[in-house]
Amino acid sequence: MRWLDYDGEACSAGRALGVLGDRWTLLVLREVFNGVRRFDDISEHLGVARDVLTRRLAALIDEGVLLKVPYQEPGHRTRHEYRLTQAGRDLRPMLLALMAWGDKYRSDGGTPMTLTHPDCGAPVHLEMACEAGHRLPDDSKLWMTPGPGARLRAHAGVA
Amino acid sequence: MRWLDYDGEACSAGRALGVLGDRWTLLVLREVFNGVRRFDDISEHLGVARDVLTRRLAALIDEGVLLKVPYQEPGHRTRHEYRLTQAGRDLRPMLLALMAWGDKYRSDGGTPMTLTHPDCGAPVHLEMACEAGHRLPDDSKLWMTPGPGARLRAHAGVA
Repeated sequence: MRWLDYDGEACSAGRALGVLGDRWTLLVLREVFNGVRRFDDISEHLGVARDVLTRRLAALIDEGVLLKVPYQEPGHRTRHEYRLTQAGRDLRPMLLALMAWGDKYRSDGGTPMTLTHPDCGAPVHLEMACEAGHRLPDDSKLWMTPGPGARLRAHAGVA
Repeated sequence: MRWLDYDGEACSAGRALGVLGDRWTLLVLREVFNGVRRFDDISEHLGVARDVLTRRLAALIDEGVLLKVPYQEPGHRTRHEYRLTQAGRDLRPMLLALMAWGDKYRSDGGTPMTLTHPDCGAPVHLEMACEAGHRLPDDSKLWMTPGPGARLRAHAGVA
């Protein structure tokens, strides 16, 4: 197949970027993944303006990635914290992929953080594998096949 | 460790986002990964304004992710195409992770594209594994350990 013959809007990476294609949005997710769930803590740790953070959190709730959950500590008024939905938790591989790239190409001062397997303590990484159980080396050639959601472009084949 | 005690700027995911945290930048990379390497083709397939594309391509070259390479077809003037560097190729897991999320959560019309293992034809996905060789289920708990590039915050522990 030739990618140019297909409508680039019928693309799952593009659709995911519609949710995430913004530096602050991804950094907010990083905070929540790292257990920072309260507005004031996220704002202060990221150094992000409160109005920007309010918009990003609202968008992530609209997109089904975060939930706003009330909690109350004894003697205090009700407050809210932000928690990942299952869709939010499923964004972890994307953050791991970003982190691995940053570790390799933007870590002049050494690796900032290492994610490890709690059972054995060894560092964790992402691998490519196929459903037949083969592990694929990082530089493997992949094939791309249009699925039921692909859209051919009107002029496809004319060029 | 407590993430809030550490300087969030010493973070590889955040640094990678400094290169990539923009919808158009990631979509431009998608085009080049899919073999669309010429300015006019990228611009037309993405529907992105030429000045925006010019800036994004220049930034990706500055960041060492793309190369601008001259080529000449017989009887035509020299033109340029954009190719991935090794750092660029190493962004593929990030695009695969985005694509998998979009397939799962933003594919009402069916999966647009499937990436397969050319050797056996089976669909390809990302898995987490540790360096001791254990495969980790997607929802595994991970531990985070500060590395040599981590930076404690000035007030850490005071809060």
